[in-house]
Amino acid sequence: MDARACVLHAEKDLRIEAYPVADMQENQVRVRIGAGGICGSDLHYYLHGGFGVVRVKQPIVLGHEVAGTVEAVGAKVTRVKPGERIALNPSRPCGHCKFCLAGEQQHCLDMWFYGSAMRVPHSQGAFRELIVVEEYQCEPVGTSVSLGEAACAEPFAVALHAVRQAGNLIGKRVLVTGSGPIGALVVAAARYAGALEVIATDLHEAALQKAVEMGATRTVNVSMEPGLKAEEFTRDKGYFDVAIECTGAAAVLKDVIPALRPRGTIVQVGVTGDVPIPIGILVGKEIRLQGAFRFHGEYALAARLIKEGRIDVKPIITATLPIERAVEAFEMAADRTTQTKVQLTF
Amino acid sequence: MDARACVLHAEKDLRIEAYPVADMQENQVRVRIGAGGICGSDLHYYLHGGFGVVRVKQPIVLGHEVAGTVEAVGAKVTRVKPGERIALNPSRPCGHCKFCLAGEQQHCLDMWFYGSAMRVPHSQGAFRELIVVEEYQCEPVGTSVSLGEAACAEPFAVALHAVRQAGNLIGKRVLVTGSGPIGALVVAAARYAGALEVIATDLHEAALQKAVEMGATRTVNVSMEPGLKAEEFTRDKGYFDVAIECTGAAAVLKDVIPALRPRGTIVQVGVTGDVPIPIGILVGKEIRLQGAFRFHGEYALAARLIKEGRIDVKPIITATLPIERAVEAFEMAADRTTQTKVQLTF
Amino acid sequence: MDARACVLHAEKDLRIEAYPVADMQENQVRVRIGAGGICGSDLHYYLHGGFGVVRVKQPIVLGHEVAGTVEAVGAKVTRVKPGERIALNPSRPCGHCKFCLAGEQQHCLDMWFYGSAMRVPHSQGAFRELIVVEEYQCEPVGTSVSLGEAACAEPFAVALHAVRQAGNLIGKRVLVTGSGPIGALVVAAARYAGALEVIATDLHEAALQKAVEMGATRTVNVSMEPGLKAEEFTRDKGYFDVAIECTGAAAVLKDVIPALRPRGTIVQVGVTGDVPIPIGILVGKEIRLQGAFRFHGEYALAARLIKEGRIDVKPIITATLPIERAVEAFEMAADRTTQTKVQLTF
Amino acid sequence: MDARACVLHAEKDLRIEAYPVADMQENQVRVRIGAGGICGSDLHYYLHGGFGVVRVKQPIVLGHEVAGTVEAVGAKVTRVKPGERIALNPSRPCGHCKFCLAGEQQHCLDMWFYGSAMRVPHSQGAFRELIVVEEYQCEPVGTSVSLGEAACAEPFAVALHAVRQAGNLIGKRVLVTGSGPIGALVVAAARYAGALEVIATDLHEAALQKAVEMGATRTVNVSMEPGLKAEEFTRDKGYFDVAIECTGAAAVLKDVIPALRPRGTIVQVGVTGDVPIPIGILVGKEIRLQGAFRFHGEYALAARLIKEGRIDVKPIITATLPIERAVEAFEMAADRTTQTKVQLTF
Repeated sequence: MDARACVLHAEKDLRIEAYPVADMQENQVRVRIGAGGICGSDLHYYLHGGFGVVRVKQPIVLGHEVAGTVEAVGAKVTRVKPGERIALNPSRPCGHCKFCLAGEQQHCLDMWFYGSAMRVPHSQGAFRELIVVEEYQCEPVGTSVSLGEAACAEPFAVALHAVRQAGNLIGKRVLVTGSGPIGALVVAAARYAGALEVIATDLHEAALQKAVEMGATRTVNVSMEPGLKAEEFTRDKGYFDVAIECTGAAAVLKDVIPALRPRGTIVQVGVTGDVPIPIGILVGKEIRLQGAFRFHGEYALAARLIKEGRIDVKPIITATLPIERAVEAFEMAADRTTQTKVQLTF
Repeated sequence: MDARACVLHAEKDLRIEAYPVADMQENQVRVRIGAGGICGSDLHYYLHGGFGVVRVKQPIVLGHEVAGTVEAVGAKVTRVKPGERIALNPSRPCGHCKFCLAGEQQHCLDMWFYGSAMRVPHSQGAFRELIVVEEYQCEPVGTSVSLGEAACAEPFAVALHAVRQAGNLIGKRVLVTGSGPIGALVVAAARYAGALEVIATDLHEAALQKAVEMGATRTVNVSMEPGLKAEEFTRDKGYFDVAIECTGAAAVLKDVIPALRPRGTIVQVGVTGDVPIPIGILVGKEIRLQGAFRFHGEYALAARLIKEGRIDVKPIITATLPIERAVEAFEMAADRTTQTKVQLTF
Repeated sequence: MDARACVLHAEKDLRIEAYPVADMQENQVRVRIGAGGICGSDLHYYLHGGFGVVRVKQPIVLGHEVAGTVEAVGAKVTRVKPGERIALNPSRPCGHCKFCLAGEQQHCLDMWFYGSAMRVPHSQGAFRELIVVEEYQCEPVGTSVSLGEAACAEPFAVALHAVRQAGNLIGKRVLVTGSGPIGALVVAAARYAGALEVIATDLHEAALQKAVEMGATRTVNVSMEPGLKAEEFTRDKGYFDVAIECTGAAAVLKDVIPALRPRGTIVQVGVTGDVPIPIGILVGKEIRLQGAFRFHGEYALAARLIKEGRIDVKPIITATLPIERAVEAFEMAADRTTQTKVQLTF
Repeated sequence: MDARACVLHAEKDLRIEAYPVADMQENQVRVRIGAGGICGSDLHYYLHGGFGVVRVKQPIVLGHEVAGTVEAVGAKVTRVKPGERIALNPSRPCGHCKFCLAGEQQHCLDMWFYGSAMRVPHSQGAFRELIVVEEYQCEPVGTSVSLGEAACAEPFAVALHAVRQAGNLIGKRVLVTGSGPIGALVVAAARYAGALEVIATDLHEAALQKAVEMGATRTVNVSMEPGLKAEEFTRDKGYFDVAIECTGAAAVLKDVIPALRPRGTIVQVGVTGDVPIPIGILVGKEIRLQGAFRFHGEYALAARLIKEGRIDVKPIITATLPIERAVEAFEMAADRTTQTKVQLTF
């Protein structure tokens, strides 16, 4: 059996073509994908053929933010039933390595993560009409949210994981730098976690507006002076208890440190190459710079919070196009001045 | 009353001259300084007139690693008696600001730290024959260690504070980069804290030898290939649980991250200007980069461990000169190929 | 100057009588109290003349959950102005002892806490028409909530402090045992902190109803079988990640442990005498039993969350009586089947 | 093939009899046991037929503290070779349940732990001449320590795990209550972890002497007044930062709490039935009571520290008898006034 899929052959060479659907084993589930969000990494593969040392070396089905409807289940499956709507966890750790047995599955030595060119052969993605997955990857999302909303479980899991790295946020002043899709969801996650103030930054007003819709208590447009250099943010050694950095931009990280209180935390989510860090100030203020990568248990939590309507992700979905218009959707997603999250339907 | 002091007037202009001894108040103690170690910051003031934005703008008595003998005590003093030998805590936080009331005195908004040009007028230092100090600054060191050893309480407090930032070290593999005076003391502190392996690096064999004397289980001379790039350190995503970075050198930090296991910690002690950090790897491995600055409660602990002979600091004291030869001592301290800690006697 | 106050002379001997108003110093504020909630400790003093070893040995003004309006301010006061409405922090740590300088002010060696018989002479309370307080005790509450709501800042601070002891609650299943005033506020605090499920227990339906109004996702009436012994709570070594125990009842604590997952946490808020604990199970499951006492920074946070309408405390205020009817109010407060929080107006 | 084993048929009915040796699979190792220590649980089975709800219901080979020499290895084994001396980890978690995948293997839902009657059929123990085990259970111990010392890896792993639950011990004052085999090893583990003071208690001088040999900085015989009630331990709200409770005796736990500083930690290792806890004081001082159960990663650490001579366990081995005299050895082990650890040889 074949089904249509969204396959990247090379930089800017994205094709909709038939892709084989695997046979379903007894612990597996066949899912008809309904919606899929374009992630920053999908976009990097499309626009630049990769990022850093990760390069597309063979045709790869893109996509890892998807949700759909169960079409059939293997004989031993109990978690879901045909007809049930699910969000699909794109992370498949091995379950046996030292990191899996330490509860640190996101660092699995043999990870398969959908739509990733980190390993060769590449891990094929989930922008397909039909896909066979493991039972444990399926998170039921009920009937009261759209599949587009359900597909946001993946980036929201990233946001929840990032927020968890910050420590307890009750009563804290939190800075979120960058109000793109991850930044906007981090704003929501920080509010959910009890942050007292969540101040979001961006260069674009449209993005800041999304941050407000997701719960930011205030925004700062850092394209204008003084931005984070304002005296109110830097006096008494810094205003913020926590910063969650979602841009990866060198200039941003440099401005964050003076605005952070001594012993404050920066959770770094945005990725990039080498960034110059003012080490003297980081030491003098005993700043903690903590990387945050993907998620593990947070996927189920994200799916449940969306399912129960406790988090409304609708504001970040700014455009939805059918799979036939995938190329257009990818081009659109590259425009940060107008788009937050662009999704495909299948 | 005047006493001889070691006063820096400008870069390379260090003079021994008379300096007034303050009147002693009822909660104060007059101490005859016996020994003082030359710290990296003293050396920076002497060689370069400062570091980063901190510049010597007026004559400053250098020195903050000192020990001596109590000569007289104020009426209300109970902690020490005349004739008692003490290590002198050079840190005087205000005791009233929000950081002091949070147990984070090293970030005091109104800190006086001996021999520091961070504020103007500068905080005068302790390389003087006689000094009047607060009672609470005096840590008794008994009679079984030399005043030179007692003067090492200050850098050892820095090392203990750094180690504390790393979290529990029981059974951990610890990398210490840089085997100068702080690095060598960090080795000792990590062993004291229960580290399973402590691997020290340096460019110089003499420094590595000191690391071994302080307890390193192994050393790596990073002037030779492959250094930390060896496959044994980088395989399975990294060998070390913790790195304590004492050089501030950009190249070192860059090599450390691949040798560190996912979710590992780098405690940054060495200071410098901007350093390029491979943010993508830091994020992908969820590394924690944690600054460590000075100390607070660790000073009393350091003094006690030295006093009780639980830590032997003698290996790091590589030269001792009388105050008259201070200039020679400072020049000598600049030679990292032969010296670890150079001390003055008064 | 005198003002009316609510003075307990002995068990069941509560009188409204004139009490002197102190002279106001330059850092002080004179407050006209508007509302005050009756706390469990007030009630214990009234009903039993004390609790445990704490006994009323001299006349004591009761009350520590109060809010009012600033009437006058000392010359140096900048934090509040006459006419401003405030919640009054009843906690006055010394600011100098080792606990204050470690950020653990609730354990101050010389604490003055309003309306407490723990020390002799007793710390006089705040159920008075007029009171002179320190500037730092005043938390502005704006104009959009009632003084009765503002007076709930104190018990809500207790709840926030308890929740903070539990560690990060994002995505956790939380059990709150006892749905009286503290339990109901703990429910709200746990929801604020991102708990996924908050299951509240009580013996009385009226109390459970209040828990639901404060945000409980589900309730269990433990006067009926099986209560927490239900298989859904005990299977696979226990359902809850965290329990916040607000009753102090021995039977409750005994039932909580089997329902808690291994390495789970019990935050103990309810106080009582000796309670038998099944130590073998606590060890076998590596349970953490953590006491939580009063609050420190959480008072300002509680006042702000109430001020900004982020927490609605109105459901717990079940009765409000004028000071003249204080005895009636205390008798009413003792009836847990109908009352949650009974307040006085002044 | 059969080999002699030490089988308990019922309370006080311990027999040396032939027991089958399993066939060795490709990932397995056949070990000739050389030494085995009698643990408190072995003794409870022998003296009382069990403890609490755990009862011996069928013949059970006792023993889980053993070391021996590899006799043969399966085809796929790489970790050890015939002739190699090893300590044998008696813990076999399933590797698949939610606790194993969270790094909390000691709470495995399907644990096989040698010589335990917790499940039926019982997990058979390791007091046998020959035993077939999994490769991963074998920890090489080299040639410089005796097999008796190597067999102490198991109780030392318990001690290390307990100490880890206490948080970072650098510079802390630690109380160890009970100086039997676990208490004495906890003393050593606390010293290894950097505790500043380790004060051990017991009712018997012989046990206190062992605590000193293992590193206690001081001892308190609690059979004499005032014991822990001494003013030096209770003033200023308590002397100790941490207590590690190894007796399970109600009276001990009651005395510990007043001697512990506010926000201090009790790690509970000793097991027993219900113990009355003064909850009011535990709350008022915000004490943390933390259970500690068995170990996981600490076994390999314990074996390595013994192998490398970093911990000397010889002082606790007070008697060694051949397997033929097992009954005599068990009777001897019951005498706490003269014995710490009694071992068998095979």
